[in-house]
Amino acid sequence: MCPSCNGEVPPATDGKVNGHGHHTPHNPRRQPFASVGDYLSNVSNFKIIESTLREGEQFANAFFDTDMKVKIAKALDGFGVEYIELTSPASSEQSRKDCEIICNLGLKAKILTHVRCHMDDARIAVETGVDGLDIVIGTSPQLMQHSHGKSMDYIRDTALEVIDFVKSKGLECRFSSEDSFRSDLVDLLNIYSIVAKVGVNRVGIADTIGCANPRQVYDLVRTLRGVVQCDIECHFHNDTGCSIANAYCALEAGATHIDTSVLGIGERNGITPLGGFVARMLVADRDYVRSKYDLTKLKAIEDLVAAAVEINVPFNNYITGFCAFTHKAGIHAKAILANPTTYEIINPADFGMTRYVHFTSRLTGWNAIKSRVNQLGLDMTDSQIKSCTVRIKAMADIRHLAIEDTDAIINAFYENLYSEQNDEKPLLEDMTADEKIRFAQKEAELSQEPESQHLDQIVDQQTNVLANHGVNGHEGVNVLNGETATET
Amino acid sequence: MCPSCNGEVPPATDGKVNGHGHHTPHNPRRQPFASVGDYLSNVSNFKIIESTLREGEQFANAFFDTDMKVKIAKALDGFGVEYIELTSPASSEQSRKDCEIICNLGLKAKILTHVRCHMDDARIAVETGVDGLDIVIGTSPQLMQHSHGKSMDYIRDTALEVIDFVKSKGLECRFSSEDSFRSDLVDLLNIYSIVAKVGVNRVGIADTIGCANPRQVYDLVRTLRGVVQCDIECHFHNDTGCSIANAYCALEAGATHIDTSVLGIGERNGITPLGGFVARMLVADRDYVRSKYDLTKLKAIEDLVAAAVEINVPFNNYITGFCAFTHKAGIHAKAILANPTTYEIINPADFGMTRYVHFTSRLTGWNAIKSRVNQLGLDMTDSQIKSCTVRIKAMADIRHLAIEDTDAIINAFYENLYSEQNDEKPLLEDMTADEKIRFAQKEAELSQEPESQHLDQIVDQQTNVLANHGVNGHEGVNVLNGETATET
Repeated sequence: MCPSCNGEVPPATDGKVNGHGHHTPHNPRRQPFASVGDYLSNVSNFKIIESTLREGEQFANAFFDTDMKVKIAKALDGFGVEYIELTSPASSEQSRKDCEIICNLGLKAKILTHVRCHMDDARIAVETGVDGLDIVIGTSPQLMQHSHGKSMDYIRDTALEVIDFVKSKGLECRFSSEDSFRSDLVDLLNIYSIVAKVGVNRVGIADTIGCANPRQVYDLVRTLRGVVQCDIECHFHNDTGCSIANAYCALEAGATHIDTSVLGIGERNGITPLGGFVARMLVADRDYVRSKYDLTKLKAIEDLVAAAVEINVPFNNYITGFCAFTHKAGIHAKAILANPTTYEIINPADFGMTRYVHFTSRLTGWNAIKSRVNQLGLDMTDSQIKSCTVRIKAMADIRHLAIEDTDAIINAFYENLYSEQNDEKPLLEDMTADEKIRFAQKEAELSQEPESQHLDQIVDQQTNVLANHGVNGHEGVNVLNGETATET
Repeated sequence: MCPSCNGEVPPATDGKVNGHGHHTPHNPRRQPFASVGDYLSNVSNFKIIESTLREGEQFANAFFDTDMKVKIAKALDGFGVEYIELTSPASSEQSRKDCEIICNLGLKAKILTHVRCHMDDARIAVETGVDGLDIVIGTSPQLMQHSHGKSMDYIRDTALEVIDFVKSKGLECRFSSEDSFRSDLVDLLNIYSIVAKVGVNRVGIADTIGCANPRQVYDLVRTLRGVVQCDIECHFHNDTGCSIANAYCALEAGATHIDTSVLGIGERNGITPLGGFVARMLVADRDYVRSKYDLTKLKAIEDLVAAAVEINVPFNNYITGFCAFTHKAGIHAKAILANPTTYEIINPADFGMTRYVHFTSRLTGWNAIKSRVNQLGLDMTDSQIKSCTVRIKAMADIRHLAIEDTDAIINAFYENLYSEQNDEKPLLEDMTADEKIRFAQKEAELSQEPESQHLDQIVDQQTNVLANHGVNGHEGVNVLNGETATET
């Protein structure tokens, strides 16, 4: 089903954490819903037009000075995006100057700027040193009335004039409609085929208001693919949560270029985010994406931009959000520790990041505790570990346990195992009298759960079977250790 | 194209801010890519299974005590979700108790819990008072090996036993595969048709690792739709940014129930978020969604859960994030002020929220400044406003302007217009000598931009045409006024 998921079970002797060490070609088995490699699909053949310095400038809290724009441009170039798009030099003198400065940085990426479909804008832009111009005009009834008030005839005539001018300067030229998904289809295809015939390098569609859905996008791009021979660029807003999905479906349908911005910043809640888009395409074709972009630079770029616009990276941000790779529930922890690909489709190491298993919870299984015990270097049998786990669960039901509390409990439990003293050391030093009573009650309750114990025994047998084949429960996985994760 | 976008231009005499006062049936015109109302589509006929208290408990930082679970359950019930799913009562004694407590709250929503496919879990769960059980087991090769180690025969036999038991208790019963998109298709359809024949109410598919893409989801659900007669529930993780899109496509293909959690919290970066999902479905059928859910409660629920798990609502969160309705660029501001539907597909008032136009930027058009001038109650001509805008842009190029700075500039400018004194009041009191020099330079540069002025004149004429028809640039739109937005 998922093309890059290894259809086969990884060999039991593979001790690597990152079970992606080998890339087995997809074995269809009986999974007809895997993408069947439509000949039009560009899922493994696309370019990114990075628009943090154009769409991103329209973000509510973005005020990039020249230095910051240069920093961001260089960072994006280091990541490997093929194009960097800048605010129109016609919008202000500062924008024009910044455009010139960035064009003179000698970056690998091509520099584009984004202008209204008007000769005045174009004249300013072509002098800045950009590699290409993106020309845009609204083609929906709403935009034609309320934004610029022009007719389609006027649009066509102006477009041809501007395109001709831009091409005469030897620059790359794209023509885009704004609000494409509310535009009259025939008008749209008409203008696109006209501009394609006069030799634009690329046409663009934009879901300016964020209303398009994925299959609709696929259909429109597919249709457009049959009308023009040139490249197709897509720009998707995220108001209804489909910007990444729409980009993916557009590529499936034959689009060639996708607009992104770092953290998706832009008008309203933004556009296709660079990190999320890369996550999506990585899962589709890991080798291809890794060959094009330096993924280890993603976090730094996001941190740079987030600081510049004074936002926090969302807790659930793709790849780099704090919880992107956290696993908590008992069933999941067991499987993750046994084989990371069980519950992960993205390898955090590809991005220079580590995973961690969150084990302080009443949902914790003993497997995660065992992992921690081993990491602490304590010698305990499985049966002792399970007993300790019961106590941890009981404690977690009474109070919120931080990571260090769990360690304290494990250490105290261990000491009590081998202590020759009569009094047991309390599992946590600062328990109140009431907490001690409640703890004793819970411990008794949990110890009397025969069903859970039976399940655990069954699960044990299976784990032992795996262990005998060399797949150890804690092998190589990083478990959270306070602030840092360390390799075992 | 977009079904709920009004294909026709709203009447010019509609002075309402929220141009959605009337709901004109979709006029296809020549927009064949609008959804054509596939008879299988459940885009206007679905139920939400809210899983904050099950999937959400697996979020890295979720530690809900009983009181919080009750608060969340009540809040979700007030919003109107049809089902609330709870953590398995078999996972700990506390979970079992909390399940009973919530079942006894007398909520409108049905209460479900989520158990492993095992009689021990089922026996505990049925006694808690839940309305139904969701039974889940991993069916992918990876999960069969590393999570539970069972064969498909075992799965089938156990499933039938558990289902029979649950139904004998008169409860609703769902059977789900975990990691459906990496499961063997025929095995999957086989087990589903078997359980459907013995009368489960619902089967479920889950993209447990977040790898599925939208058209793949559509195909699988469509296929499943032809195999079973019962309801189909879907659970989508968001690792590759497709959880909302996948939910949408699943409904298009005939699914009936979608799992959500507030802010999408759950394992790793979570699942389909309640707010984002509602935004997506609202755009597809506004009347339907508004009739089912109390949208004005969304923000409060998100704030409640965010506080409980100690996260910030992401800056770009659907609907409720700070920038969800902000508009900045000149072109957009003009269109938005003239007609909000130009650049918005969601009406913030539906959620009890207001929009605001961000106008402190070098990208600002004079239209947004005019709006602020009117709000401040100052009497200025368009030509004076444009002159003031030039100064604001010049100032914005030198330093970051907060909202109050812009007001100060406008007020100072206005005073200088009517002042009988010889010295002009400085536009900002705290300018350094260097800033004053740079400001004078920029002001001169911007004033000498004839092309921009020409463009503005063209745009003016159009705006005047609109104004003569009763569509005023600032009519009824809330413009940011420091911390609060006020109606004009």
